[in-house]
This record gives sequence, C-alpha cells and structure tokens, in this order.
Amino acid sequence: MPAHWGLTVTPSGHLACDSVSLASLRETWGSPLHVVLARRLRENASEFLAVNGVGRTRAEVYYSYKSNPVPGVLQLLHGLGVGAEVISEYELWLALKLGVPANRIVFNGPAKSTAAIHDAVARDLLLLNVNHREEIDVVAAAARALGKRPRIGIRVAASAGWSGQFGLSIGQGEAFTAIKQVHESGVLQLTAIHCHVGGMLRSAQQVLGYVGEVLALADRVRSDLGVELAILDFGGSLATPTVAGISEFDRRLSIAFQAPIPAPVPDATISIREYVRCVVEKVETHYAATAKQCPRIFFEPGRAMTGNAQVLITSVLSLNASDPKPGWAILDAGINLAESARSEFHHILPASRMHAERALRYRLAGPICSPGDVLSWSALLPELAIGDALAIMDAGAYFVPFATSFSFPRPAIVMVDGSDVHLLRHAETFEHIIALDRVEQPPANEKRQALQ
Amino acid sequence: MPAHWGLTVTPSGHLACDSVSLASLRETWGSPLHVVLARRLRENASEFLAVNGVGRTRAEVYYSYKSNPVPGVLQLLHGLGVGAEVISEYELWLALKLGVPANRIVFNGPAKSTAAIHDAVARDLLLLNVNHREEIDVVAAAARALGKRPRIGIRVAASAGWSGQFGLSIGQGEAFTAIKQVHESGVLQLTAIHCHVGGMLRSAQQVLGYVGEVLALADRVRSDLGVELAILDFGGSLATPTVAGISEFDRRLSIAFQAPIPAPVPDATISIREYVRCVVEKVETHYAATAKQCPRIFFEPGRAMTGNAQVLITSVLSLNASDPKPGWAILDAGINLAESARSEFHHILPASRMHAERALRYRLAGPICSPGDVLSWSALLPELAIGDALAIMDAGAYFVPFATSFSFPRPAIVMVDGSDVHLLRHAETFEHIIALDRVEQPPANEKRQALQ
Repeated sequence: MPAHWGLTVTPSGHLACDSVSLASLRETWGSPLHVVLARRLRENASEFLAVNGVGRTRAEVYYSYKSNPVPGVLQLLHGLGVGAEVISEYELWLALKLGVPANRIVFNGPAKSTAAIHDAVARDLLLLNVNHREEIDVVAAAARALGKRPRIGIRVAASAGWSGQFGLSIGQGEAFTAIKQVHESGVLQLTAIHCHVGGMLRSAQQVLGYVGEVLALADRVRSDLGVELAILDFGGSLATPTVAGISEFDRRLSIAFQAPIPAPVPDATISIREYVRCVVEKVETHYAATAKQCPRIFFEPGRAMTGNAQVLITSVLSLNASDPKPGWAILDAGINLAESARSEFHHILPASRMHAERALRYRLAGPICSPGDVLSWSALLPELAIGDALAIMDAGAYFVPFATSFSFPRPAIVMVDGSDVHLLRHAETFEHIIALDRVEQPPANEKRQALQ
Repeated sequence: MPAHWGLTVTPSGHLACDSVSLASLRETWGSPLHVVLARRLRENASEFLAVNGVGRTRAEVYYSYKSNPVPGVLQLLHGLGVGAEVISEYELWLALKLGVPANRIVFNGPAKSTAAIHDAVARDLLLLNVNHREEIDVVAAAARALGKRPRIGIRVAASAGWSGQFGLSIGQGEAFTAIKQVHESGVLQLTAIHCHVGGMLRSAQQVLGYVGEVLALADRVRSDLGVELAILDFGGSLATPTVAGISEFDRRLSIAFQAPIPAPVPDATISIREYVRCVVEKVETHYAATAKQCPRIFFEPGRAMTGNAQVLITSVLSLNASDPKPGWAILDAGINLAESARSEFHHILPASRMHAERALRYRLAGPICSPGDVLSWSALLPELAIGDALAIMDAGAYFVPFATSFSFPRPAIVMVDGSDVHLLRHAETFEHIIALDRVEQPPANEKRQALQ
C-alpha cells in the first residue's frame, strides 16, 4: 500500500519516505505536521510534462495555485517548468513574487474584480479566461483604457461537469455567442477555449467526451469567424487514484453500523501520462485531419499534481472508550486541517506501527468541539495509545487552503527530499493568530475588578 | 426587520447602527468587512448577567471563546464581567493574555493534551470539565505531580443533545461512574456537572428537560456519595432567533426550484433573559425543596452572546446572467468567510438599498472556484450592480473561527460603538498569508529559464 505514494516501511514499522520516518519528524517539527514528498511531486510534474503526442505537441502545465498555495511547493514546480494558474489578486501577487513571468500565468475564475482585471491586462498575462459574458465588457474597457490587446479565452461548460456559476454552455449556444463578442470587440485577442469540468476524472472516456465538444466548438469558430484558436485549455480535474468522494449512503452506513467507507481501486483511475496522452493525441489527430497547425494544449492540474505528494501527520491526544464500540480516538488534527475528509475518503495509516495487525475499529475525531469534526467513523487500526502517529494520506490538495485556526494553530510544513528535510512553513504561533488584532491592555486592577 | 439586530435604516436607505451606515464603512476599511455591533453585544451580555432568580442566585457567564475569538470582542465582554470558556491551549493562552484571572476560566473539550491538562492544573483554573473517563487518570496524575487539588466537573450527555465524542451518558450510568471515580481519586475536588447539549435550543421545554436530568444526577451524587456539588454548568446552545439550520429537503427545493429557504420566526426562540430565568428558577426551586444551598450556576453561551452582534458586509464583484434565471451575483465573501451559511439560514440584506423593492431573485456565489461556494440559491433582492453592498446577518458566531485564506485574504473587523468606529483587526495582507513561509529567491535568470 505505501508504494502508491512512493513510500516504504522501515524494519521497525515506520512509514518512511526515502528512509526518513514520517512519524519521527514530529520530534523536530511538532504535531500535527504536513510532510511534502519531493520525489512524488517531481514524478507527477514530469509525467505531466513528458512529450506525449504522436507528433510534436508538448502539453503546457499551469498549476492550480488554489489547490495547495505553499510557496515551497510552488517553487519546486516552477523550477521544473510548470507555470501558474491563478484565480485572485492574491494568487497573482504570489506568482509574481515567486518569480513567475507574466507570460507563464493564466488568470481564471468567476470572481475577478474590476481592479484585478485591470491589473491582469496591464501586466500582459499569458491568458485571461473570461467566466461569463458580463466580464467581456469589463476586460474590453480595461484594454481600451490601457491601450492593450489582451489574450482572451472563454470558459465553457460542456454537457457533463460543472456549470452554474462556472462558464458558458456550449450546448445552449452561450459559449459561441461570447466567443463572437470577444472577436468583435476590436480590442481583445480571441485566443482560447477553456474547459475545466470539475469533479474527479477517472477514465479516458470521460476526458475524451469534453475534449470532443471543445474541438467541435473550435471548428465552428474557424468556420464561422475565420479564427484559428492559438490555445485549447483543458483545465484540471484528474482524480488522485487513492481518493474518492463519499456517497451519502456509505456515510450513513458508516455512522450507523461502523461499515468502513470503501477505498477506491487505484488502478481504476488513468495515470497522469495516459490522461495527457489521450488529450494530446485526440487534439493532434483532429487537427491533422483539417491540415491546420495544432494549437498549444494547456493543462491546469491541482489535485493530480500535488494531492498524493503530501501527508498530514497527526497524533492521538486522547482515547475515549465511553461510547459503545468502536471507541473514539481524539486526534490533534480534524476538519480544521482536513476539511476535505468530510466529503472524501482518505487512507489513514498507523505511521509508526505499519507491521502491527490492524485489528480494532476506531472512530477518529478531531480536536474542535463540533460533532462534525470526525475524520472516520470506522478506521481499522492497531490498538492506539496516546501519542501514536497517524498519517492522513493525500493531503496535498485542498487541505492547506481550507485550513482554519479554529482553536488550534495551523501546523508546520516540511519537505522530505532524499535524506534532507527542509522547513517550508513554520507552525503558526499563538502570537501570529492575533498579530493583526488590536489588543488593549487595561490596567491590571481595573481588569480584575470587572472580571471578578 | 433591521430592529431585530438593533439596526435602523437611514433616509437614503442604508442599513445603519447608531446612524453609522454599514455599507459606507467599506470606504475606510475595505470589503469584505466584519462589523461588530457594540450596543447589541452589551445588551446580550446584560441579559445574561441580569439577576433572574426568585432569590439571590446570579448566573455566572463564561463566553465560549471558540465561537468568535476576536480579542476586541472578548475584551468588551470581559469588561462587563463575563469570564472565559476555553477548549485548547491556544484559547487558554489568549484568555490569560487578555487579563482574565485563572479563577474566571473554565477549561472544556474532548481534546485536552496531557501538556494542556498539566498547565491547567498548575494554574488553578476555576474549573476543568473532564469529557470522558480516560481523562480522569491524566488529570489525577497531573494533580499528584503538582501537589494540587483541581476543581473538576464531569461533562455529561443528557437523553437529548450531543453524545458520541462528547460527555458521559447520564442514562447509561457512565456519568455517575466517572463522578465516583473523581470523588475517590483522593486528589481531585469533585465540583461540578457540566451539560452542554449542543445544537440550537429554542424553547423552555427543551431547556428544562436536560436541567431536570442534571438535578436528578446531583441528587444522586448527594445521596450516594454525600457530596454537595458547588457548581452546575449548563453550557451553551441557546439559538440566535434569526438563524436556523437548513433542512436537506429545503436545500434541494431551493437548488432545483429557487424556493426561498424559510426564515425562522424570531419570536419562536426564547429570549436570553427567559432562558436564564427558567434555568435559575428550576435550580433554585429544586434546592429550596431540599433545604440545601443553591449551587453556583454557570452558562457558557457562544452564538447567543455574539451571533447577532456582528454583520459581514460583502460587495458584488460580478454579475452573471448566463445561467437560466435567477442569475448569479458573485460576491467577495463566500464560504471562505461564511462557512456556516452552508448549513444555516442567514438573512442577507441589501445594505445600501433597504428602501428598494426586493423584486428579483439571485443566486449568491462566493469568490472561490468551487460549486459549493454558494451563500443562497434564491435571495430576494433589488436589482444589483457591481459594487453593491450586501449584509450577511448574524455573523458573530462561527464565521471568524471557520474563516480560511482560500485564495482571498481575510477581512478587517471593526466595531461600531455609538458614533465611534474602532478597528479591532486589520485586514489580512498578502504578506501576512505567507509570513511563516520560507520563500527562496533564486537568481532572476535561473528562474526565467526554468519557467519559459
């Protein structure tokens, strides 16, 4: 099982990355602790960046900053040739701060403020994908004011996947109408179609479905508007093979009868390489048939890039057998740090006792005083003691950005790289949590009078 | 409607607190913006602290820090005579930093580390409520090691309300067994029963049910162990009158058919004063009948104290009519700042257009790129324009602690007090979000080479 994450088990039963025991890292860096697995991160990036097409088209990769906005992680990816996909002024600022050139930044999302659009246009970002029609006038006004001709993509919604607040429907014609509007604006360069379907893609069939819809739309743009799109941007959404959504039915069975949530079969998800290859080949084949030059192909992976390259190590704070079996183990990490575990199955491994028989069922609760703070209703584990380490796997997507300081400070983040361990982020201190507050210090007497 | 929160409407249609327009505060403090209503906070506290009993028993009030851990809010409450209820080392540290004496601090929760328990015992806190039996040995060991006799309460689970990871069942006898164990430990002072039922209490009937169970248990402690408990701690859970949970049925109707979520009838929730009075009278009457001295009565309000004393002001970033009606308004605050709105109904008011007819339905989405980032599927509002302010009401409980920095920095918090506006917390800066990170700055050339 640990091999799924490129991990091993030491003779003494510790889950290890390149012979570094993950549980033992707590001695230096405290608990809970995020551990980034550098080797897995490099492997994932190289899978995305490998030339996969039958011909020459190389996939370009823009990492979805929102998934795991940790500067040390982002810098490693950028060093390998991965660009930035951002959805806010903060993320744009961060990409620029980390040295990403403007022509390696894609700006997306439904919530671009007028100021953010102005900034993006002024900086000549690689691509600005408009999410809905009303954005076009705002971008055009910024372009006119700045004397720029920004490269514009249109986010489209395919017949499957997210719609609602995201993108313009291909099927209902809204996507083409918006594309035409961009083309006719006079100040915008119609450059791309952007199709991020959302959810968790697992099969080539799912992927090829929406790629086909995008290609058909690109054909219509050519035939009706005479425009050859320079970029097809296929977004992200490739699943992490070891993570799956939890159905309402499974959740209820788990709460009521301690039925374990079924783990996904890792082989049921196509690999990164297969995913990239199937998209690139489909696009190349399509363009070869039209004798047109193949456009640039963009991917914006989030969870597929970083999800399985990070582990959240947590410790048992307390045990509570009061409730009918299975008993509770109270951990120092709960939904405050692993919000995704409310809706996704994540493997939870006994990080320092991997050889022990997993003979007991536990309910795993986090530290915040909420009945919703449960990471598992039925985790099969060896008998636990206070201080034991558990590893919450696949913590590299949507754990850090959804983390809160609810009653407990946020943990340190370290990176294991060969036998080296680097600190990427210090653990949050008590002082940091209130660093932006104005704390008035009334005279000691007065205070005690009021309070006593 | 604004009167529910002690607010008014100016002649020009602005929602106002003591004549200060909430929407206009954005000009100085930015958007989004938390606005604390000092007058309402003082009123809530004075309702809790009023002497309510038929005799002399004064309710003691310990504010649940986790609900809204903003130093400026906590200091106002402490200045009025409210103590601190904490559930973590961080919250204990914060209470002490704000000048709360140890004998005005109650320590609760299922996730007390051994170190935290040691610290609490060393400091002679007012009361340490043990959550489950296994904690008793840890507390006793700390007491022996430190030569202390800490005051101990037992958290119990009544026949209604939370159980699971919280407290020991009265009905199944676990609560009494634990009480006996504390009594016989030799080093712990058996002091209190602690009963925090959770959820949202609305009626005297609900309240009196669990109070009766606690009184019966206290009687058994007297008769079987000969111990007169010094404190009965009734926790919190009184509802905010204008907030209610959203049922799965209502949510589905709202998504599918734009049916508005029904707002709770404010008068259906007992007032703070009635709530305190009904508990105090029941306890006093019970003890009068036994001719014993009435114990101290503790309350630990969270949402009832601060929930309706804070408003989250948000601005319309973008409008999106692409989707079938109702159209989308994209706001600069979503579940990143108002996580509670996923499961609770909160009124959302047009903060600067209160006189306008609310004739249109909108879907209100937040700024993060997630289909779950929806604050309302059917909000009745005047026609919106970019920049319009909306007021998300009852933002004073579980908004701040559940806030994340997901792609967008967290907002400033100001307090309106008469005509004064004080800054309580600065808006988070981009720099603050990565202040704990190690950001390596590779030479400019190298960076650009890797990325291009």
